[in-house]
Amino acid sequence: MSTFQRTTSSYRAGARTLPREYYTSPAILADERERIVATGWNCAGRASAVAQPGEFLVREIAGESILIVRDSAGTLHAFFNVCRHRGTRICREAAGRFGETIQCSYHAWTYGTDGRLIGAPHMQDVPGFDKAEYPLHQAALAEWEGFLFVSGANDLTEGPVLGGYMEIKPPNQSATMSGRACGHLVSDQLPGEDRTRAFYYTILPNLLLSMHPDYVNYYLVTPVDVDRTRVESEWLFHPGTLADPANNIRDAVDFWDLTNRQDWDIVEQSQLGIGSRRYQPGPYSARESMPAAWDREYLRRMGRS
Amino acid sequence: MSTFQRTTSSYRAGARTLPREYYTSPAILADERERIVATGWNCAGRASAVAQPGEFLVREIAGESILIVRDSAGTLHAFFNVCRHRGTRICREAAGRFGETIQCSYHAWTYGTDGRLIGAPHMQDVPGFDKAEYPLHQAALAEWEGFLFVSGANDLTEGPVLGGYMEIKPPNQSATMSGRACGHLVSDQLPGEDRTRAFYYTILPNLLLSMHPDYVNYYLVTPVDVDRTRVESEWLFHPGTLADPANNIRDAVDFWDLTNRQDWDIVEQSQLGIGSRRYQPGPYSARESMPAAWDREYLRRMGRS
Amino acid sequence: MSTFQRTTSSYRAGARTLPREYYTSPAILADERERIVATGWNCAGRASAVAQPGEFLVREIAGESILIVRDSAGTLHAFFNVCRHRGTRICREAAGRFGETIQCSYHAWTYGTDGRLIGAPHMQDVPGFDKAEYPLHQAALAEWEGFLFVSGANDLTEGPVLGGYMEIKPPNQSATMSGRACGHLVSDQLPGEDRTRAFYYTILPNLLLSMHPDYVNYYLVTPVDVDRTRVESEWLFHPGTLADPANNIRDAVDFWDLTNRQDWDIVEQSQLGIGSRRYQPGPYSARESMPAAWDREYLRRMGRS
Repeated sequence: MSTFQRTTSSYRAGARTLPREYYTSPAILADERERIVATGWNCAGRASAVAQPGEFLVREIAGESILIVRDSAGTLHAFFNVCRHRGTRICREAAGRFGETIQCSYHAWTYGTDGRLIGAPHMQDVPGFDKAEYPLHQAALAEWEGFLFVSGANDLTEGPVLGGYMEIKPPNQSATMSGRACGHLVSDQLPGEDRTRAFYYTILPNLLLSMHPDYVNYYLVTPVDVDRTRVESEWLFHPGTLADPANNIRDAVDFWDLTNRQDWDIVEQSQLGIGSRRYQPGPYSARESMPAAWDREYLRRMGRS
Repeated sequence: MSTFQRTTSSYRAGARTLPREYYTSPAILADERERIVATGWNCAGRASAVAQPGEFLVREIAGESILIVRDSAGTLHAFFNVCRHRGTRICREAAGRFGETIQCSYHAWTYGTDGRLIGAPHMQDVPGFDKAEYPLHQAALAEWEGFLFVSGANDLTEGPVLGGYMEIKPPNQSATMSGRACGHLVSDQLPGEDRTRAFYYTILPNLLLSMHPDYVNYYLVTPVDVDRTRVESEWLFHPGTLADPANNIRDAVDFWDLTNRQDWDIVEQSQLGIGSRRYQPGPYSARESMPAAWDREYLRRMGRS
Repeated sequence: MSTFQRTTSSYRAGARTLPREYYTSPAILADERERIVATGWNCAGRASAVAQPGEFLVREIAGESILIVRDSAGTLHAFFNVCRHRGTRICREAAGRFGETIQCSYHAWTYGTDGRLIGAPHMQDVPGFDKAEYPLHQAALAEWEGFLFVSGANDLTEGPVLGGYMEIKPPNQSATMSGRACGHLVSDQLPGEDRTRAFYYTILPNLLLSMHPDYVNYYLVTPVDVDRTRVESEWLFHPGTLADPANNIRDAVDFWDLTNRQDWDIVEQSQLGIGSRRYQPGPYSARESMPAAWDREYLRRMGRS
């Protein structure tokens, strides 16, 4: 791929890749999950997916099934998908729309879309039982530029955002297979110099933003095991791009499908090689200032810097 | 299913479901296997399956392969399925019939059906070797109402039997798809009031008895992993029920096949939900006195009550 | 199989099979891998497979991917298959032929077939970076009778070679299905008495040699898990045997295919039986002097004798 010309970015001389155990140790993976994923602000997708009252989506975050639902009054909530009676997982679907209530199928405990317990058959006979004490457990929820973020923490921290841009090399107009733009500019307010730039940001712990003059795509990244990561991608376009059949959004999607598969292939080989007893942290070049910066932030969050 | 009307049973106010680790911890599963399964009286099926001399069956109990065989003199034995020479598993079949002897296929060590070592090729040259010191290892075996029970312990303890009955609601006669009896009463001596009752008993650690006016079925329950259990079921009928083609035993079998699949589905959802960090033990209603009693007995056996 | 007549071999009275944990413990398996496999001389196949400059083969040894390559000057090397930059596994093929160089596909670091780093794009800008400090990591390599051996250790130790011979019983000429020789003698210099003998040697940690008048076959044995071992076999014949279509090498191959499958089947049953809590080390007969000697050498290497 020769669509881009790199811009200079800050580089700390002597930066090296991480020691082997950061790639292979189940204990460090568990530590990561607790220190970075469970307490961070995890992107859970787009708010537009739960635009109507009762609409919900379910996301797995740090091993938890989280139910995101818009209640009857229009407020968004994030709940742990766990019934307060026997602990049963309540909602089995990945997305959908509730009526007025959410009901567990085991013993029919029933909750409002705002999480309050409103029905609990036979529990009226239990001395001292009070429905008000058994709402669905809440997770913290925040919205930013149409993205939903979920966390066990209480405040939306201003964590570092890692990233930068690359100049799109003429005569290319965008990162597409043909090099041509695949549709409208994403915004008419886009400053002139940004119309030939591609911006890439990591918003820790799980969102990668890839923004181009004519499209945005993003990735949700979930650690699965020491040697396995789930990556989900979605695409955003200007409404005018989608309305006009003369535009060819596959031109952009195919470009990244090819690029990503090449990248995933080589990082799989890295994972295999780093497992060797003889692997030693290697030197980063100045072109690798971004992974080096990512390593520093990662170690800081892990309490090991 | 609305075949039943519940009867009152004892209930301790304030009972709650078990903490999360009892559903998720491999260490507790291992502890269970040692404290409850390996030392308990495990049902190994029906004695009628090994009615003739030489007939055997093999069951896995607490991770051990146990060989149950009726010897030439008519006595039943339970042996560890392990050759005393090289430790080889001797019998590979789940059931069958031996001749006069049981032979290991590795180096042809040969045992009587009573477990005595009677042949050991080339061992006569080993100084001090005495066949009498190498019989098959015995496991304890007991028979009750035609059921076989096996244990590493020596005495048949009188462990609590948990259970009770439910009234069958008229006009239903039994727990079948049609509500009609599927054959003869299981015994002509069944007292009048028991002819409209369904009895359910747990005989710890691994036998569930489900007894109805016209049939008995039972379940053997084997823990496999923290989130997996093997359940095997068999059915018992009055001989007259099976002899008369007008009877329809599928009417009963289908009823429980449907009911069990519904129950298994919902307990799988409970297992998933209880894995959440936010799961907390929930309150049992008076209708849930049986699982609450089961939890108490379980904790007592685990030495944690 | 009654092709053989056993010869007498040394036997220590009272020898018993190993305790259970040597067959079942992941910790002991890991210890084995470190003490015996990783530090031992592991057979990696035949030197004839890498006869030409640039030819290579890749073997997994003690969990490491090892790249064996003949350099442009004709010298054989064994390298850890790990790029010195980002730790990426360099070579994905099991065997093949390089040109003048070996290139990592991640950032194009390039090595000579002798392991020297000769190209590292963009690294010239990193202060103090010196290509001479980043050759491929070497593993020790030795050749014996056409076999290649690889080790993390520096010297070719004279470890015990366990084995012996069996007399081939007349009228059999060899260990084949028909009992007839399947081709030429492997060497015209074979002494007369060896022309009716089959030699079996274990060269620890991973080579089994099986040598007959008319053929040699060998086995590479790799521990995979406490209950799984990978066994690979190859065959060697006199060139004249392969040249003459009247010879039937399947006659020998089929004999060992059948014999090995029978042996593997029974050792699988042993593995299952030895997992029992009731397994106790059993007595070896004088005919089992070889496994008893193997156990002694194994315990010595494990530091437990």
